[in-house]
Amino acid sequence: MTVSANSLQDFLAHCRSVVGDDFVVCDDAGMAPYLTDWRGRFTGKAAAVLRPATVEQVRLLVTACAQWRVPMVPQGGRTGLVLGSVPDASGDAVVLSLARLNRIRAIDPVNRTITVDAGCILQQVQEAAAAEGCLFPLSLAAEGSCSIGGNLSTNAGGTAVLRYGNTRELCLGLEVVTPQGKLWDGLRGLRKDNTGYDLRDLYIGAEGTLGVITGAVLKLYPQPKACITALAALPTPDHALRLLTLMQDRCGASLTGFELMSAFCLALVAQHFPQLPRPFTAPHGQHVLLELSSNESEAHAVALLEDAIGAALEQGIIDDAVVASSIAQSAGLWQLREHIPLAQAAAGKNIKHDISLPVSRIAEFITVTEPQLQQAFPGCQLVCFGHLGDGNLHFNVAPPDGIGHDAFLANQDAVNRVVHDSVVAFGGSISAEHGIGALKRDDLAHYKSAVELDLMRAIKSALDPMGIMNPGKIL
Amino acid sequence: MTVSANSLQDFLAHCRSVVGDDFVVCDDAGMAPYLTDWRGRFTGKAAAVLRPATVEQVRLLVTACAQWRVPMVPQGGRTGLVLGSVPDASGDAVVLSLARLNRIRAIDPVNRTITVDAGCILQQVQEAAAAEGCLFPLSLAAEGSCSIGGNLSTNAGGTAVLRYGNTRELCLGLEVVTPQGKLWDGLRGLRKDNTGYDLRDLYIGAEGTLGVITGAVLKLYPQPKACITALAALPTPDHALRLLTLMQDRCGASLTGFELMSAFCLALVAQHFPQLPRPFTAPHGQHVLLELSSNESEAHAVALLEDAIGAALEQGIIDDAVVASSIAQSAGLWQLREHIPLAQAAAGKNIKHDISLPVSRIAEFITVTEPQLQQAFPGCQLVCFGHLGDGNLHFNVAPPDGIGHDAFLANQDAVNRVVHDSVVAFGGSISAEHGIGALKRDDLAHYKSAVELDLMRAIKSALDPMGIMNPGKIL
Repeated sequence: MTVSANSLQDFLAHCRSVVGDDFVVCDDAGMAPYLTDWRGRFTGKAAAVLRPATVEQVRLLVTACAQWRVPMVPQGGRTGLVLGSVPDASGDAVVLSLARLNRIRAIDPVNRTITVDAGCILQQVQEAAAAEGCLFPLSLAAEGSCSIGGNLSTNAGGTAVLRYGNTRELCLGLEVVTPQGKLWDGLRGLRKDNTGYDLRDLYIGAEGTLGVITGAVLKLYPQPKACITALAALPTPDHALRLLTLMQDRCGASLTGFELMSAFCLALVAQHFPQLPRPFTAPHGQHVLLELSSNESEAHAVALLEDAIGAALEQGIIDDAVVASSIAQSAGLWQLREHIPLAQAAAGKNIKHDISLPVSRIAEFITVTEPQLQQAFPGCQLVCFGHLGDGNLHFNVAPPDGIGHDAFLANQDAVNRVVHDSVVAFGGSISAEHGIGALKRDDLAHYKSAVELDLMRAIKSALDPMGIMNPGKIL
Repeated sequence: MTVSANSLQDFLAHCRSVVGDDFVVCDDAGMAPYLTDWRGRFTGKAAAVLRPATVEQVRLLVTACAQWRVPMVPQGGRTGLVLGSVPDASGDAVVLSLARLNRIRAIDPVNRTITVDAGCILQQVQEAAAAEGCLFPLSLAAEGSCSIGGNLSTNAGGTAVLRYGNTRELCLGLEVVTPQGKLWDGLRGLRKDNTGYDLRDLYIGAEGTLGVITGAVLKLYPQPKACITALAALPTPDHALRLLTLMQDRCGASLTGFELMSAFCLALVAQHFPQLPRPFTAPHGQHVLLELSSNESEAHAVALLEDAIGAALEQGIIDDAVVASSIAQSAGLWQLREHIPLAQAAAGKNIKHDISLPVSRIAEFITVTEPQLQQAFPGCQLVCFGHLGDGNLHFNVAPPDGIGHDAFLANQDAVNRVVHDSVVAFGGSISAEHGIGALKRDDLAHYKSAVELDLMRAIKSALDPMGIMNPGKIL
């Protein structure tokens, strides 16, 4: 697919005529920020970085890519974790950055929708919604720099999935430029629309391999009046599952957070961030951070949470609990959860897994998989925490005491295989919220059925017959 | 695509070897129930009706259809309203009835999922969930006879969409036999799974044109402890929208129903069902039936509803209201809503529209469209009611007094055009919850963009290159 030097120059000249000289970046220094992934693990090469400012410019650039057969890599905030938005090492592709396409197009508080350009930063969308008294619930660590187009393309998860779903569930309409340079206007703000195939959900989660998302209509929710947090201590993951059932039965949609943290996770936080609160003096095997939201009042949230915690204590499901009596105290409890990844980073590198399981099988999965890891890598340390309510665990494996982190990382493929084989045996997913990108492409080919891979390839060939849209990602 | 007589006999002999003689129905009397649509408006023809009892039998029959190039029409409970599940008049196709595939495969109350055969009746799924203390929230008029496979294939809506979403939002995993006779096992019970293209949502709503759904993993919810209903009287649809915003801000996910009914609708009910309650003595332009559900208690639901109604009265949004003080009174208020279609039927035929709009534009849509109809069809009577919270109106047009219903129905295409042109101008959908089938295929071609139609055709060709899966439906 390499384009000859002359032809490439013609192509770039055409691109300059579309977006202006300043926005076709070809020099190494100018391109550098667009070529390296978020974690700094890989730097690709590109023929150019194209920076359109309007949907029509995107359409014209994609049309040119199709005409000259130049592969393109759509790129948002470049915060993905699976190398989905950076080009490969060939240097054949152009990066198509959506960063300048960053207008909030419209907000409709009665329809509870917001219409945005794909390049809007997630936090910008949250703030625009809040200014109208609404909540856009998608929330994740990278929200200050990730773009909504990237969130859509990867079907991002985050901390509010238990109540509000993944990005997929938060999107009503899409606008997409096809690999042929056609504009599909699917910007509908409708709760019900059964007029043909669901194209929207095909582009969501396709990681830019089927087309370029340029805009979206997103769902908004009423802003809750209060969010109250509690930390419960309990002996095992199985008790955490019983607590989840009890909380959902009593609180329904008011339960907006349910995060598991093992004793080892909290010990790691205590070691590296001694200034943070230590809610319990006695040791406990597991901890659950609970969050309740109320559209009624803070008093309602507190009473509901205290009653439920009381019932859980009475039934012997939990051993101890702290209910935050203020928003400041709630924030303190969340800090414990948020500092686990930071404490891990301070302790040194480990081998990370972004897995999901049927919620009911999580306890058994941990019970079965931990000894398998211990047998294969004696002394390895499990850093297990995550969105238990969504069945999503961060199941990270740190080296045994005395073994260097880099030396242990040499085992990455073997560790992945133990964990992922077990995940698949339990009916789980090897990528809960990060996607496939280039990083997990071989894993996908290994674990997916031939039927499913063939169906995906048929769709890819139908919508991108030239294979120029983010090649080498997913398939 | 006509199969020669000899070849057809070979094909049917093969089918008999798969499912047994009794389940390949070829005689007219035996086939009759499978050939006529729910409303009795159309009767098609078929070469045979095939009645498999297992997924493997479905797979073998579809493989045979592919080998002999026999078109097939997948069929569930045959309660669809757009002729999606009955064969055309050619007699070339076979009906593939999923009715015998009706096992509840598994329930997992901790994961809050139920795994079912496609032929399960919706009510059977609701009851199986309830037996485990869970709610499967999909609910619609045909629930005693529609099948879950049909609900999925048409992305059915119903009365619980405001809180729980359409069937699409209630499905986590699918099992599908492709037009080539391959089995795709996508029966995953995961809340998060980002491993490639979203095949599930492509089959949901595809009305059996891309494959045969044989099984599904569906989401369950905790059973609410109480549902309490109120009826509010207010002057205009615009006031109803203001009430919706107020209720959502105060009650969040506890608001589970919000149905609009015009004065004309309630007058029609009072005329034909005089035994039903008449909550208000004074006349009012519009009425909203509100439903609140609580996972806490009946007292909580009543207090929350009364507070919100009080605020709406104080703010001058509503003129009057009745809050049901018991479950029996709640049922009485729902009866008013449920008797509107029955009162319409008693009054004679009318021209029905299943439309949706951005919620915020509904009042303006009614204000603009009603005079357009009056101008074109002087004296016609609008029967306007529906799921206002979802933006979904039943916008039905009855004849002027003194004009016969059959004579008026001759205007059907012209009436449809006025309504649908206005719907599209307001950013709405011409099929909110019923789908396209054969009935609205021409409308789809008229109103959808060329880009969207081409994308749908590309997907159809990629997944069903022989065009044997429910031909003539949607596209």
